[in-house]
Amino acid sequence: MGERAHSGRRPGVSGTRAAIEAAARRQFAELGYDRTSLRQVAIEAGVDPGLVTHYYGAKPQLFRTVVELPFEPAAMAAAVVPGDRAEVGLRLARFVLGVLEDETGRRRVVGLVRAAASEPEAARIIRDLVTSQIIVPIAEQLDVPDPAYRAGLVMSQIVGLTMARYVVGIEPLASRPAAGVAADLAGTLQRYLAGDLGAG
Amino acid sequence: MGERAHSGRRPGVSGTRAAIEAAARRQFAELGYDRTSLRQVAIEAGVDPGLVTHYYGAKPQLFRTVVELPFEPAAMAAAVVPGDRAEVGLRLARFVLGVLEDETGRRRVVGLVRAAASEPEAARIIRDLVTSQIIVPIAEQLDVPDPAYRAGLVMSQIVGLTMARYVVGIEPLASRPAAGVAADLAGTLQRYLAGDLGAG
Repeated sequence: MGERAHSGRRPGVSGTRAAIEAAARRQFAELGYDRTSLRQVAIEAGVDPGLVTHYYGAKPQLFRTVVELPFEPAAMAAAVVPGDRAEVGLRLARFVLGVLEDETGRRRVVGLVRAAASEPEAARIIRDLVTSQIIVPIAEQLDVPDPAYRAGLVMSQIVGLTMARYVVGIEPLASRPAAGVAADLAGTLQRYLAGDLGAG
Repeated sequence: MGERAHSGRRPGVSGTRAAIEAAARRQFAELGYDRTSLRQVAIEAGVDPGLVTHYYGAKPQLFRTVVELPFEPAAMAAAVVPGDRAEVGLRLARFVLGVLEDETGRRRVVGLVRAAASEPEAARIIRDLVTSQIIVPIAEQLDVPDPAYRAGLVMSQIVGLTMARYVVGIEPLASRPAAGVAADLAGTLQRYLAGDLGAG
């Protein structure tokens, strides 16, 4: 997106890259990692397939370039961290449900979960992204023992909610109002983030 | 497996079906739902592709025939339900980690999660299987309000643990000893199964 300002007048390298990346984003999201090919991305972007390889190398690098978190980590931190420590789990649960109930947010989260589930290569890229952009920042804010492990437990519940409620659609979890689900997840996230683990 | 007793002497319908189903099980597990084709299953089983269609119809029916839960629901119930209600979450957490730390169990759970993530058709079949074989039996044992919803929350945490620890490999969750992870999940499962939801 940042390149747009430079590509106003004529298509150049940045316009070509923007077209390739838009096509890649769409295909990764709609077809999944496996079924997306550099060749089809090039066709949709209207460029020679060799150019895609020239700019990005192979599929993992292209995926790494266009993969997007469903939210700004800074926005999450601002929504979750300030305030009463006893309600940090509830704030995080509401933030997560807010992202997942929004169509764009849900599509991005589901896209990441699907890619991570289907391809070890994509899983590694997503693991690095989630670790550096979500796990480490959360862990840094928590004045508790074992913060990265706690952040991993939090991610496990969020990923599992995405699968059960939005991908597989297990009832009645799938049709329960979001506010109720957030309230029911809050205790779990509270314990993982700030509570006593183990003998729980 | 139950057909083996009838197919001892010569390959017949049951032997052919057994060969097709073995090939299908292997390909669904190793290639995933999407990349498995009736044609390749037929080739591996050494039969005419038309025979696979004749016996099973299309891919969803073949998948439905061979999909396996990673454990016997009765074994889970026997391991989890009897005993102190205050420790039902810990017993379930240990049972789940026991399945996931076993290579065969893990392969089956990961196969189900991958299939559910990648294909809406497979997700529907798995949802029906999980609902009828796991969610309803758990819910029937629980003398609590909203049992099917609680069972769905339990499934969400188990699926998420599978993704985070075994598929994506988020550290340090992925390398933490199973007994510790079970202890840390126990409080979550206890609350979902038997605790006060909501204001947690």
